[in-house]
Amino acid sequence: MKPTSIAVIGASSSPHKVGHMIYKNLLTQGFRGDVYAVNTKGEDILGKKSFKAIGDIPGAVDTAIIVTPAPTVPGVIEECIAKGVETAVIISAGFSETHTDEGKKLEQEIIDAIKSQIINRKSQMSVIGPNCLGILIPRLGLNASFAKDLPKAGSIALISQSGALAVALIDQSLSLGIGYSQIFSIGNKAVMDECDFLEECAADPATKVIGLYLESIKDGWRFLKTAEKISKTKPIVLLKSGISDAGRKAASSHTGALAGSSAAIDAACAQSGIHRAANAEEFLMLLQTLSTQPSLRTNHIAVITNAGGPGILATDATEAAGLTLPSLQPATRNRLFSQLPSSASFANPIDVLGDALCDRYSAALDATGDDAGIDGVVVLLTPQVMTPTEEIARAIVDFHKRLPLMPVIACFMGGPSVAEGQTILMEGGIPYFPTPEAAVHAMATLLPGHNGNGTHEKRGARTRKEKAQKILAKYAGLLDEATTTELFSLYQLPQPKAKIAKTADEAVQIAKDIGFPVIAKISSPQILHKTDVGGVKGNLQNETDVRSAFANILLATSTQHSATINGILIQKHLPPGNEFIIGGLQDPSFGSMVMVGLGGIYTELFKDTVFRIAPINEEEAYRMLTELKSWKLLLGMRGKARSDIDALARAIVAVSELMNECPQIQELDCNPVLVTAQSISVLDAKIVVQS
Amino acid sequence: MKPTSIAVIGASSSPHKVGHMIYKNLLTQGFRGDVYAVNTKGEDILGKKSFKAIGDIPGAVDTAIIVTPAPTVPGVIEECIAKGVETAVIISAGFSETHTDEGKKLEQEIIDAIKSQIINRKSQMSVIGPNCLGILIPRLGLNASFAKDLPKAGSIALISQSGALAVALIDQSLSLGIGYSQIFSIGNKAVMDECDFLEECAADPATKVIGLYLESIKDGWRFLKTAEKISKTKPIVLLKSGISDAGRKAASSHTGALAGSSAAIDAACAQSGIHRAANAEEFLMLLQTLSTQPSLRTNHIAVITNAGGPGILATDATEAAGLTLPSLQPATRNRLFSQLPSSASFANPIDVLGDALCDRYSAALDATGDDAGIDGVVVLLTPQVMTPTEEIARAIVDFHKRLPLMPVIACFMGGPSVAEGQTILMEGGIPYFPTPEAAVHAMATLLPGHNGNGTHEKRGARTRKEKAQKILAKYAGLLDEATTTELFSLYQLPQPKAKIAKTADEAVQIAKDIGFPVIAKISSPQILHKTDVGGVKGNLQNETDVRSAFANILLATSTQHSATINGILIQKHLPPGNEFIIGGLQDPSFGSMVMVGLGGIYTELFKDTVFRIAPINEEEAYRMLTELKSWKLLLGMRGKARSDIDALARAIVAVSELMNECPQIQELDCNPVLVTAQSISVLDAKIVVQS
Repeated sequence: MKPTSIAVIGASSSPHKVGHMIYKNLLTQGFRGDVYAVNTKGEDILGKKSFKAIGDIPGAVDTAIIVTPAPTVPGVIEECIAKGVETAVIISAGFSETHTDEGKKLEQEIIDAIKSQIINRKSQMSVIGPNCLGILIPRLGLNASFAKDLPKAGSIALISQSGALAVALIDQSLSLGIGYSQIFSIGNKAVMDECDFLEECAADPATKVIGLYLESIKDGWRFLKTAEKISKTKPIVLLKSGISDAGRKAASSHTGALAGSSAAIDAACAQSGIHRAANAEEFLMLLQTLSTQPSLRTNHIAVITNAGGPGILATDATEAAGLTLPSLQPATRNRLFSQLPSSASFANPIDVLGDALCDRYSAALDATGDDAGIDGVVVLLTPQVMTPTEEIARAIVDFHKRLPLMPVIACFMGGPSVAEGQTILMEGGIPYFPTPEAAVHAMATLLPGHNGNGTHEKRGARTRKEKAQKILAKYAGLLDEATTTELFSLYQLPQPKAKIAKTADEAVQIAKDIGFPVIAKISSPQILHKTDVGGVKGNLQNETDVRSAFANILLATSTQHSATINGILIQKHLPPGNEFIIGGLQDPSFGSMVMVGLGGIYTELFKDTVFRIAPINEEEAYRMLTELKSWKLLLGMRGKARSDIDALARAIVAVSELMNECPQIQELDCNPVLVTAQSISVLDAKIVVQS
Repeated sequence: MKPTSIAVIGASSSPHKVGHMIYKNLLTQGFRGDVYAVNTKGEDILGKKSFKAIGDIPGAVDTAIIVTPAPTVPGVIEECIAKGVETAVIISAGFSETHTDEGKKLEQEIIDAIKSQIINRKSQMSVIGPNCLGILIPRLGLNASFAKDLPKAGSIALISQSGALAVALIDQSLSLGIGYSQIFSIGNKAVMDECDFLEECAADPATKVIGLYLESIKDGWRFLKTAEKISKTKPIVLLKSGISDAGRKAASSHTGALAGSSAAIDAACAQSGIHRAANAEEFLMLLQTLSTQPSLRTNHIAVITNAGGPGILATDATEAAGLTLPSLQPATRNRLFSQLPSSASFANPIDVLGDALCDRYSAALDATGDDAGIDGVVVLLTPQVMTPTEEIARAIVDFHKRLPLMPVIACFMGGPSVAEGQTILMEGGIPYFPTPEAAVHAMATLLPGHNGNGTHEKRGARTRKEKAQKILAKYAGLLDEATTTELFSLYQLPQPKAKIAKTADEAVQIAKDIGFPVIAKISSPQILHKTDVGGVKGNLQNETDVRSAFANILLATSTQHSATINGILIQKHLPPGNEFIIGGLQDPSFGSMVMVGLGGIYTELFKDTVFRIAPINEEEAYRMLTELKSWKLLLGMRGKARSDIDALARAIVAVSELMNECPQIQELDCNPVLVTAQSISVLDAKIVVQS
């Protein structure tokens, strides 16, 4: 996308109209290509002649900016196609965002126009919007938007689903000196969506880092695969607001209830190596850090400070950020002994003391640069009366130029006294932060992630899928035990020996066949939380226990009038182990998802769960388990044996494949999954099939 | 503290010396009182005569700023006392902070001089420092420090244990327009400590809010009681760095291991109503919010925005902050229907749309102000081309003036385009934040806390204390079961029936006396984690089980060569319930502490624990329980009965009293505490007594 000849369709001579602002922005902010005004009245605008239609423009036009009223836009699009325009940016509003039939119809007409190009095997016109702010390419002086100013040219590409937020971010970037390679406001995403823009930015040599603000994701799986591919070479930072909840129905399973609005996004970020920003401020800070600094080789960093307090605050923050402050090597310390006063601290943080001039900062910087055990530096400064803030800022910039592979991040605390120093840092490509904690946190984002190498693939288990579809074909709603068992054995999900008893005598016979002790559970498609209604009795040691349990369960569940009772399930009672949950659900954007977490009563209390977009492979299943707090439990805490982690990982993979191959399964809970040292076993499961 | 006549002792004519800077600051920044220079050479400084000693000054001197070398300071202090000085501020360094004997001795001499005043019943001279930055009182034009500039006068008092950090905060306040009533750099706290300064600020009518930066707390109990009293009328915000860890020995109990560096501070903040800031930026933001806005009556707020994206981000943040966005009342909505365009959003957030001018913001503000269901407003703005940012800022300021009891917080996103608007907000006393999330978080801090009314008192259970001391007198190290039981029955901490068996026959007899089923546990002062070494066998149903357990435990623990084995404890096996932990420890600053949390294996995994400074009453014990994630477990989840919460609360109180009456108990774990619907029972306990 490198416009050389632009037509503003709907350009206006009235200064308050968007069609005027954009035309003016294109003429006055440094763009060197041709700019034409198209206006039905053919009036002069800003002293320049305009054309009544794009077809009237004599030369070629590669880019059209469309600002005409919504009803005229489909016609304008056809004219643009006829003229051979490569990119059309539709600023006009009044389409699907109005939630009116008229708006939706107009948007569909645009989509259809582009589709017919594809069908006719013509090269396709790129369409941005409608309902967007426009595009900005600072290094070309191109402001094809109604934002007032162009930010600095730089290496960050910004893709924003909100025009208003883009304006605010651009404005704030002016204060922070953050530079952009290109900025796209993507509007309603009628034709080009977030993935197309990601590909666009990936192909742009001027773009080093990509920032994304999204309110919705069109095709989750494509987004995941696109981001995974691109983030290997260009870091992606995502600011996503949590509106996906609206699209999700009230959940009847634990998995569904635990998913929340962020689970799918967090999973996609974890699987594709996207950095997720907590808020708009962090978004800009991370973009600035990732665009100016190299990656951090190990988590070993040094902190240099001229005040104890901020040094302590930075130290406190390192652990939370997954970084460490190793001791300096003896040679480094010895060198510093000769360069700093004896009352300085030669530990890490290095405290150069409040009266430090630039020489002490330089000595400390050089020492950490030469120390083979240190891979990144955070420089803290408080403005004491004698502190030469600007000189120190220049020393940091020089250090960065000399050692471009060592990340440096600064925190100059204060206001007017440090402002000029901050400007020097900014211009020298050193990110700076208002607090030591933020600086340390930013440093941690420079650690390379695993970025989901080969963690998921659509597997071609066609036979299994066909069999599963056959099993599910006749069902809707909550699946009964027998069908669940059939499905689970197809996917090799282990369940304890069990059989349904209709009478107490049958229950005793089944228990004898399976072998005592056994457990008895109500079997009914309507009873979801069996324990809650007294529908489960465990550790039945003999015939008497079984008969008593049979009677008690029937009594307890007799209050569930609307429930169909299939009988009582008699199941092998297994030795104690850890209880986990494996779940699955369908996300409106991302499709099949899989979850694992601590099971039983603690699932709801602690929400110690991890989600992924399905299907995944065993490596990714392991990664999920290590992200749980309960991971230690599996490793064997307090004298207990290590659990059969392999079997658990295999089961997670199996559920992820089941969810992927049978997307009619809306929700799935395997809870509890009993995990012992020797094996795992799904003790109870709930599967809800779309009706 | 209202100086009218100040002597700078150690004033210097050399511009780079601290003694020069302070003298100059006092002469040039608007202070209207008398300022004298004291200099041993008697030379003229800044064109003014100096005195060779403070005694030579003809008139009275109420405040002395001391900048002379450390060894001279004790003598100078004596001279100040002789002169009748009320407050001495010792800037000079070279005292206890050097960790040298000489430095400590000099500091002690200062303390002794003041003590002798007390002994002689003379009115005591206040001493600030040594090793501090000085004091600043902006409304008096008083800058008795070596900080370059005075910030604005205002209603925030700042007390900082780090001079360097105070300088950075003052400097940043200049940019943010934050005003101060007084600023104290408190240095080594030789005489006046944080509590004295808190009292000072509490008594100052110009101070509305107090900001505290602390690295250590001298007397935790006094701090707690002082803060509790003051925070009822003046909010206190604390920025505390986590260095108290250094003072704590390696913990041998769960309670100790879980305490971390922050537990005591968090407990003190919870009990005394202090707001704890996460970092320096939040510290200033909270001070600004609390000093300008009234408290928030309920958690019902409205959000007004001109862009959807930021509105969504604010909505996401409200839940986490404990706030809600109720629907507007019908009358409010109806009024807005006539004032806003139909495509605006009349829900909450109220979206006045991107092309909103000031009238729409004003209409939305007035509507929320009149809506009885709304108690606070967050106003978001993104700078669109047509947005009259300054006019809107003025409208917000006017709204605040008209409705001073309704908190208003703004978030103007952007840079240069919103800078002037931010200045208007700042000067109008409206706090503004860079992100919607930060604005919502700040709003939440305006909710009144409970602020520990009567939650703890030193009880006078002297007889019990004497008995407890007698029981503990002969012990050090890990307490044995018998003594623990004696102590627990004194404090009415319930334990299951149990007795130690030396032989298998004895074990069987005890089991028969107690009644089956029983549990068998190794009894040894050296074995801390009994389960880990195979020292516990549960659910023993009959004689055979008991004999086999007896043999197996002895076999399993035979590897613990250095352990003294007292025998095997045979204990009643109780019905299942929830396992909790109640703990106690001694904190170096705060003394006795009590903890409660989820017990068993999950204690370490989830660290679901709450600490308090001991002793506490039952109300506070309840409050601790409600702060646990496991609170729901006690209320009875998933068909289970409500636990005996009263009994658990009583046990927490009992442990808090035990820890307080027996401070030689270093660490205490009651783990697990079995909590059922009918009762609670301490199944295992560990008490470590100082040796």
